[in-house]
Amino acid sequence: MQLSLNSQSSLPLVDQIVIGARNLIDDRVLRPGMRLPPIRTMASEHGVSRFTVVEAYDRLVALGYLQSRRGAGFYVAARQETPALMQRSGEIERAFDNAGVMHQSLETESGRLKVGVGWLPPEWMDEVGVQRNIRTLARRADTKVVSYGTAQGYRPLREQIQIKLGEIGIAAPAGQIVLTVGATQALDMIARYLLKAGDCVFVDDPGYWNLFANLRLYGVNLVGVPRTMDGPDVPALESLLAEHRPKAFFTHSVLHNPTAGNISAAVAFRILQLAEKHDFLIVEDDINADLYPVPTTRVAQLDQLRRVIYVGSFSKTLSANLRVGFLAASPDLAAALTDVKIVSCLSTSEFAERLVYLMLTEGHYRKFTERTQGRLADAITGTLRLLERSGLKIYAEPQGGMFVWAQAPGIADSVHLATQAAQSGILLAPGNIFRPQMQPSPWMRFNVAYALDPRLERFLGEALGR
Amino acid sequence: MQLSLNSQSSLPLVDQIVIGARNLIDDRVLRPGMRLPPIRTMASEHGVSRFTVVEAYDRLVALGYLQSRRGAGFYVAARQETPALMQRSGEIERAFDNAGVMHQSLETESGRLKVGVGWLPPEWMDEVGVQRNIRTLARRADTKVVSYGTAQGYRPLREQIQIKLGEIGIAAPAGQIVLTVGATQALDMIARYLLKAGDCVFVDDPGYWNLFANLRLYGVNLVGVPRTMDGPDVPALESLLAEHRPKAFFTHSVLHNPTAGNISAAVAFRILQLAEKHDFLIVEDDINADLYPVPTTRVAQLDQLRRVIYVGSFSKTLSANLRVGFLAASPDLAAALTDVKIVSCLSTSEFAERLVYLMLTEGHYRKFTERTQGRLADAITGTLRLLERSGLKIYAEPQGGMFVWAQAPGIADSVHLATQAAQSGILLAPGNIFRPQMQPSPWMRFNVAYALDPRLERFLGEALGR
Repeated sequence: MQLSLNSQSSLPLVDQIVIGARNLIDDRVLRPGMRLPPIRTMASEHGVSRFTVVEAYDRLVALGYLQSRRGAGFYVAARQETPALMQRSGEIERAFDNAGVMHQSLETESGRLKVGVGWLPPEWMDEVGVQRNIRTLARRADTKVVSYGTAQGYRPLREQIQIKLGEIGIAAPAGQIVLTVGATQALDMIARYLLKAGDCVFVDDPGYWNLFANLRLYGVNLVGVPRTMDGPDVPALESLLAEHRPKAFFTHSVLHNPTAGNISAAVAFRILQLAEKHDFLIVEDDINADLYPVPTTRVAQLDQLRRVIYVGSFSKTLSANLRVGFLAASPDLAAALTDVKIVSCLSTSEFAERLVYLMLTEGHYRKFTERTQGRLADAITGTLRLLERSGLKIYAEPQGGMFVWAQAPGIADSVHLATQAAQSGILLAPGNIFRPQMQPSPWMRFNVAYALDPRLERFLGEALGR
Repeated sequence: MQLSLNSQSSLPLVDQIVIGARNLIDDRVLRPGMRLPPIRTMASEHGVSRFTVVEAYDRLVALGYLQSRRGAGFYVAARQETPALMQRSGEIERAFDNAGVMHQSLETESGRLKVGVGWLPPEWMDEVGVQRNIRTLARRADTKVVSYGTAQGYRPLREQIQIKLGEIGIAAPAGQIVLTVGATQALDMIARYLLKAGDCVFVDDPGYWNLFANLRLYGVNLVGVPRTMDGPDVPALESLLAEHRPKAFFTHSVLHNPTAGNISAAVAFRILQLAEKHDFLIVEDDINADLYPVPTTRVAQLDQLRRVIYVGSFSKTLSANLRVGFLAASPDLAAALTDVKIVSCLSTSEFAERLVYLMLTEGHYRKFTERTQGRLADAITGTLRLLERSGLKIYAEPQGGMFVWAQAPGIADSVHLATQAAQSGILLAPGNIFRPQMQPSPWMRFNVAYALDPRLERFLGEALGR
């Protein structure tokens, strides 16, 4: 079979065979009814183990690409009724391997303890304040609620974001800011603009898994850059750059999801040097910016939006429901990304943007974030005690935010613990979902705003036998 | 130069050379400083005219891919500072060739007469009613305004859409409906899921140009299916199917944009037969459904969401600002598209969806659409008279909606008229922007809700010399 396998690639050999065979079948080089090489032949031809081939063939059967005929080997399966759809389904399935947690997270059906989610509980947010501001806004004669917003988004809010970014040392004129449907759409628009199938992209390992699923769907090659307590691991990044030519590095600087660490100024500087030398862009996710009160470094602060695209949001602090996020970029990129926004959703909701603007300017926002920072600090202290009592090892004591990254001793893959937890009505976030290739991980991410519910400690006690 | 040109392709030869050369340069087969074959050599080697090569080289210079050295020929240009970005810019520019109109349309700066836009003027919409409902909603204790919505969108609204679709003969359980950021995001998610670069896609010619820009950005090959007064031209579709294997046909059935025609039952049936035989999906845009009171056929009504994905929106009738649209599809596709939604924007705004639900159920919506249908009927009559007085030829008398498709006699390409109009502060929509490859067109789309402003008649009188 015409396959080129690379044992140096970060993509496991099984995946390489599965993807290669899928492409040959999709492109009709291998046609329905054709027999694949026997496992033994395939293994020796490509210098891989027979187990690798068996696993790849089995996955291709599960994806509907192959049929296994008892004793007679593996054959290319006949096409389904709607091949246009079916051809993609394998890819989608791989892309969404870790989307199950998101589905469960977004379910409103309650009773479940959602220790694994990436946001604050509704009761921590200022529901009443947001509702009051909605009423205020809806009473104003000048509030547009029926016509499209402008392409870049409500200008006064962009000017307010300009001020906020100025406070953390990033000079971003309102003309370089584009409002988006949360940070997720900002990341999506950037990926859509910068990347094409087959491109190499660096991401944090561990990192934001919904982004990984999205990038995989674009058909790009994800390479994980190990994360240390000070940000991306610079020596590891250097050696990865000897092998790969990434178009971009998507990284999360402050209160990193999931480890809760911050990038140091020295690491930010080194990463920018490497970006310059190896000519890639940095997409800096700073979604937790307002949960962290201490002055700290962002890559964009050093670079000033030359090689960095900066992404932020109000979903974690004001409302995830309204879907208001933003990106800041060089003038050219901001213009191009506005075009991407137009073709993919025309415009964002100006009503929601006016609401965010109102809450930023009437003083509500600052008060709320200060109070929340205090509450989170208490919850972190409580969660650290609880996890230590339960015998877990903490990665590092977080300086803020909602996450604690921890592992249970003697457990190499936390997926099993998460499965057990699900049976007890607890949604845990196992470490493997935060890894670019879903590699096993002993770690877990705990949301401190949910973790102090007694059900978690009870479960950990029982599961870990203490 | 390694290029394969196809004179049978719907893509002009100039475009084929430009795209081919760009790819060779992006992939570094052609490197900075290398000289391209002289025009004469290139023309004879590929059996094309010298003018074709000259035009292609000139465009590559304009895109920054080539440098012209006086008397010495054409050379591959040196890379810019951020190649990751620059490599894409040519593609983006092509994709957005016709996005200028959208930028101008979304500008709030007024004084301009926007006869070319695709929506109703704010003063036609029920601004006051929407604001009142926002206040009602914001007073309700059970209104979620801070946390994420569910992945598929607010269920009661999906149930309401199920009822609405039932009324036009489409059985779509709420579980098969996904709420989106307007119809545009629905179309984008479908394209993202179904298509990959190089795929062939059929679209209406003329048709919705913002979709064309989006599809081009996905790198797919757009083939226009000529539109007749009864929907897509079936014999033309049949002969195109002899040459192409499309993955999908994106078509607009009722009050088609821009011709305002409706698909007939016979054409809908034939298209489904062809979709079955040639195995492609139909994406049916029905964004003007609620502007048309008369019972009429949709493709989805015959097919019942087996091979058809149906797309709708409340942007034209309730509020474009809130960004609420939807798609309805087979159970598998609805599930997969929900995954695409999660990775690209997590969720839509449940507040906006609750607002639409409230307005659908309190009777507001039905009253408003009935009144608007009446107003539009009057405006159509007035616009037809005006255009006839100005000597324009009408494509067909619209049965509803906001568009009249017309041409001025003796003008082969309406672009020049649109340029003239822009100088007089009038935004016209020339026919070429509605064509998949921006081919010249004598036609123009007039929005009847803007057309009765005396400035239009004055301009047409002067420009057409009557």
